[in-house]
Amino acid sequence: MAADPAPPRRGRRRAGEADARAAIVRAAGDEFAALGYDGASMRAVARRAGVDPALVHHYFADKPELFAAALELPIRPDRIVAELLAGPREVLGTSIVRALVTRFADPATRSAVLALLRTAMGHEFAGRMLRQFLFRELLQRITDSLGLEDGERRAAFAASQIVGLIVARYGIRIGPLAEASDDEVVAAIGPVLQWYLTGDPPPPRP
Amino acid sequence: MAADPAPPRRGRRRAGEADARAAIVRAAGDEFAALGYDGASMRAVARRAGVDPALVHHYFADKPELFAAALELPIRPDRIVAELLAGPREVLGTSIVRALVTRFADPATRSAVLALLRTAMGHEFAGRMLRQFLFRELLQRITDSLGLEDGERRAAFAASQIVGLIVARYGIRIGPLAEASDDEVVAAIGPVLQWYLTGDPPPPRP
Repeated sequence: MAADPAPPRRGRRRAGEADARAAIVRAAGDEFAALGYDGASMRAVARRAGVDPALVHHYFADKPELFAAALELPIRPDRIVAELLAGPREVLGTSIVRALVTRFADPATRSAVLALLRTAMGHEFAGRMLRQFLFRELLQRITDSLGLEDGERRAAFAASQIVGLIVARYGIRIGPLAEASDDEVVAAIGPVLQWYLTGDPPPPRP
Repeated sequence: MAADPAPPRRGRRRAGEADARAAIVRAAGDEFAALGYDGASMRAVARRAGVDPALVHHYFADKPELFAAALELPIRPDRIVAELLAGPREVLGTSIVRALVTRFADPATRSAVLALLRTAMGHEFAGRMLRQFLFRELLQRITDSLGLEDGERRAAFAASQIVGLIVARYGIRIGPLAEASDDEVVAAIGPVLQWYLTGDPPPPRP
């Protein structure tokens, strides 16, 4: 049987919705590229896309969500961090590494995050955009949650080990690190993040 | 006065030497690209360049030196590591970070190493080449020197923090990390490398 030449109403509406959402994501990409993460606003994205601001909010709860969509990131780092910070403080380092290696089992996540890091390392503007996002949505949340005077610096040192784990294990794939099990990675790097963030000393190393 | 149309003998010889060295470096680039770090040999580079193997050894003491030249690396990571390993073991972590931040004060070193990491993250083959170099010339030296059963894994975890420091401080330039002084970076990251490598616990964090 031939397909109905006039698609049902629901199908038409869905296509229209997908178009609007795609137009907003494209406009968000342009807006972030033009003004950086801090300078971009959801209202300006709506103006660029020629849609009502309410429609932008209909599809995207907040700026980090729009940013993740514009960069085609399959994860929401800001939500992951918020969840981890809601958990017990004394296992924060271990929880961060566990969340990371679990998410990075997905090849789409790995390649999206590695592509983002590579771009940020190679382009001044992309670097600034990622820096602003990391700062506003991740480091500042961690800093506020720690409630320590030098929380910002602690969070930044922890971020350096997290970035290094991503690049060395999943990017360059340094042998023993790429071959280590998730449990081994959590056991080795979790205590380091904990020390950076809270000052808790790592356990004796066997 | 017009320049002498026939350059003096010394100048001719120098130009010839520069040509030969450049031909060897080009051949080395092709050889590493074709066979990887492990597969390449100085003899095969000589064959490719159409010169006597003795000439390759005249310009380049060993394979790591040829590799650094082919990649236009202004530093010799293998020599730096050898020097650090000759120093006192109980400050190894601190010495590594100090050596790194001191070298990275030079913009040429920064951009060459960042370009290398970016390429290694983006291209399967370049990644393999860097991985082999890191393994043979850096991790294995550290492993042998530590004389510990799981030295290879320890060195790899330390490498992840070193890569992370490079990417986060000099590549993405995460605010508090980019703004921290060299001394602050050494004080924060040195103990972590020490813990990874030797198991010495870090000092209490203020």
